[in-house]
Amino acid sequence: MKKLTHYNESGEVSMVDVSDKEVTRRSASAHAFISMSGEVIDALPSNKKGDPLQVARIAGISAAKKTSELIPLCHSLPLSHVAVEFEIQRDGIHIIATAATTAQTGVEMEALTAASVAALTLYDMTKAIDKSMEIREVHLLEKSGGRSGLYRRESGT
Amino acid sequence: MKKLTHYNESGEVSMVDVSDKEVTRRSASAHAFISMSGEVIDALPSNKKGDPLQVARIAGISAAKKTSELIPLCHSLPLSHVAVEFEIQRDGIHIIATAATTAQTGVEMEALTAASVAALTLYDMTKAIDKSMEIREVHLLEKSGGRSGLYRRESGT
Amino acid sequence: MKKLTHYNESGEVSMVDVSDKEVTRRSASAHAFISMSGEVIDALPSNKKGDPLQVARIAGISAAKKTSELIPLCHSLPLSHVAVEFEIQRDGIHIIATAATTAQTGVEMEALTAASVAALTLYDMTKAIDKSMEIREVHLLEKSGGRSGLYRRESGT
Amino acid sequence: MKKLTHYNESGEVSMVDVSDKEVTRRSASAHAFISMSGEVIDALPSNKKGDPLQVARIAGISAAKKTSELIPLCHSLPLSHVAVEFEIQRDGIHIIATAATTAQTGVEMEALTAASVAALTLYDMTKAIDKSMEIREVHLLEKSGGRSGLYRRESGT
Amino acid sequence: MKKLTHYNESGEVSMVDVSDKEVTRRSASAHAFISMSGEVIDALPSNKKGDPLQVARIAGISAAKKTSELIPLCHSLPLSHVAVEFEIQRDGIHIIATAATTAQTGVEMEALTAASVAALTLYDMTKAIDKSMEIREVHLLEKSGGRSGLYRRESGT
Amino acid sequence: MKKLTHYNESGEVSMVDVSDKEVTRRSASAHAFISMSGEVIDALPSNKKGDPLQVARIAGISAAKKTSELIPLCHSLPLSHVAVEFEIQRDGIHIIATAATTAQTGVEMEALTAASVAALTLYDMTKAIDKSMEIREVHLLEKSGGRSGLYRRESGT
Repeated sequence: MKKLTHYNESGEVSMVDVSDKEVTRRSASAHAFISMSGEVIDALPSNKKGDPLQVARIAGISAAKKTSELIPLCHSLPLSHVAVEFEIQRDGIHIIATAATTAQTGVEMEALTAASVAALTLYDMTKAIDKSMEIREVHLLEKSGGRSGLYRRESGT
Repeated sequence: MKKLTHYNESGEVSMVDVSDKEVTRRSASAHAFISMSGEVIDALPSNKKGDPLQVARIAGISAAKKTSELIPLCHSLPLSHVAVEFEIQRDGIHIIATAATTAQTGVEMEALTAASVAALTLYDMTKAIDKSMEIREVHLLEKSGGRSGLYRRESGT
Repeated sequence: MKKLTHYNESGEVSMVDVSDKEVTRRSASAHAFISMSGEVIDALPSNKKGDPLQVARIAGISAAKKTSELIPLCHSLPLSHVAVEFEIQRDGIHIIATAATTAQTGVEMEALTAASVAALTLYDMTKAIDKSMEIREVHLLEKSGGRSGLYRRESGT
Repeated sequence: MKKLTHYNESGEVSMVDVSDKEVTRRSASAHAFISMSGEVIDALPSNKKGDPLQVARIAGISAAKKTSELIPLCHSLPLSHVAVEFEIQRDGIHIIATAATTAQTGVEMEALTAASVAALTLYDMTKAIDKSMEIREVHLLEKSGGRSGLYRRESGT
Repeated sequence: MKKLTHYNESGEVSMVDVSDKEVTRRSASAHAFISMSGEVIDALPSNKKGDPLQVARIAGISAAKKTSELIPLCHSLPLSHVAVEFEIQRDGIHIIATAATTAQTGVEMEALTAASVAALTLYDMTKAIDKSMEIREVHLLEKSGGRSGLYRRESGT
Repeated sequence: MKKLTHYNESGEVSMVDVSDKEVTRRSASAHAFISMSGEVIDALPSNKKGDPLQVARIAGISAAKKTSELIPLCHSLPLSHVAVEFEIQRDGIHIIATAATTAQTGVEMEALTAASVAALTLYDMTKAIDKSMEIREVHLLEKSGGRSGLYRRESGT
């Protein structure tokens, strides 16, 4: 039976020991969606020099590097790659964040953190127009590498 | 017509000047939901000493204090109060984060960041059992104080 | 009867609400002692340009500014003053750290954190000679300001 | 005679006590220039979605908020405004950073740090083309507020 | 004769060059004790949902990851394991922190920092009841790995 | 033809993927100069216990460790060595910062950041005497390791 990680034998929280795990290439990608009214979507491209997507992309990349400061039991690791992509829809923006490392533990949390902070930044940049925006569908799309191998989210879940 | 904040007259991104805003008490609360399978929900209370909700609560409170480091154009401000509450359902956990300050600008982003990071931490603490959990309904519930006054999310939106 | 702070009515951890506390000048000083062998004490002044006390002083001052990042339920506040003083004895070094603010909450933790990190830095700077050094007597010397007013440690406790 | 700040009477470094200083509006602006070859300048606008100036602007604004973490004896203070502007020349880019606060101490270091980190970021974004770029003329343009009042750099110095 | 580390030949402070050291598994454990009155000890378990030990454990683990930010000449390294254990006595709480890495330098400071910050957090969580608590016996228990090999504190020192 | 890094094929900013780069020893050194009036230079050594160069050296070393937090698209990596040296002239101070790592990417930005922050700290420590000081000649002196091999700045450029 699967068990909660981050606990030792006596049930105490710890940063789990990964000393014996293999150093392999690991990558992960995560998704988030932020709903936006047409008014907000329309206002996005009207700023030649200041683009909310640009600010959100940088915020997401920077946040990936801060993941182990935010998630208490997350291992800090040197990221070899981070990217944040956007796809603008009529009712909001899809965000896909990707992270990679060559280390003893995976980067799922880095990808999820990048996607979440990019979404929060989009909210911050546009909240003067509409405060009712919502962040949804924050989930892991895929991870590879490590003992548990490949995980790919089933579409439609 | 409402405009995107964070831009000066020539369309460049900046941390907007709040020097002339009044120092008033401002508070905000935000919501997030993380979906969980019954298997994950059932495993939560089985650890006497290590409780995922406790870790997530502290992570959320700490994240609220880091908001201005994560959201590029957010003002840093001294928070007078932060709380993170949970409500366990059969299909997941509701998270409500509250923040308050006495300052020249509001704390919506602090509340949203606390809720998001608490949710991400719950994911991290339980992902060994199920990687398909999803964070949803991250939105502002309420804000008060400041020039724009009270905002309360309409239920059902 | 006195109660543990940092808990709300339902017993949950939170960053306590200080919104209704008065903004007053508050200061605190704390003490730490690090035991050192004569060999370590003698080696301290032999470096003209690089002085372990200088490095420790700056580390302590910097740590005071990071207190709310280290202590989860500590409020972040703008410090108006931080100082770290040393007194070299034959068997070790006394450290006294002082912090001040004009805010809604006190700076005991800032003073204690500065003293502790200064002591840890002295350990780091000299551990090549002796690993058995010990940090002791980390305690609050005095605090003033705020509702609870003046506290002064009884000598000999 | 003027004296070095940051020292107490016995000559020890400290974060100077500003408790008795007035809380007033204070602002500062600083300049930096980064030299660039024509080849680098020409490559700047060729990226529709990724603009080195945008990344540098956000880096500068974020760095202003981190000033007290970087400069050991700098007070942390809540910034009410930060902006970073660029002027592209044939031989490089001028950077002007502005910061403001309402506090007991000034924001010269915040403006200088924002300008410096924006320049470093431009170097990082373009160094694949040319490593010989140089950052020059990092200086304070102007400060206002506080006991020492207005300072304005003489042009040509 | 042993020498102070962190100094180059001309006596200047530096982060010592570990480039030629071997990458090996290294671990360390450290101890701290915080004295507490019976009144404070008795109040600890009275909070079902909010446990000072839990908050202190997470604070200690998070602090281990921040060690190189706190101790100026400490190398940053990816920790493969961190744990913080408590043992409640009638007159206070023993704290034992353990850290491990696979790197070119040891983790003594990480273990000592985790123990110290856990102790400071216990102070913060309970100081409303008693301000005279004292942190004592902060010392290295054991380290292994690296050129200097195994160190084990003699009991009674 | 050389291209701007940090952009993917569709022109979007990202933290470039270095997964396939070799792990080799890499080092870099950078220079900065801060102009100072004779009055400031003369005041430097008058403080026995508090030396602006010492504070600046530690600030520079600490900043090197924070480079990836400051420069958005910079990879975080474990530094094996950082040093900051000064040479006092009649009209100012030369700063030379050196950094080294064994990693998949270089440390030019770490060296440049250390030199810049050391210079900013010297400004902060002495600005009470003279605000017109200027930071100049911030450039890369040399880098080695990695695919692009050795770079050495031509003297006189």
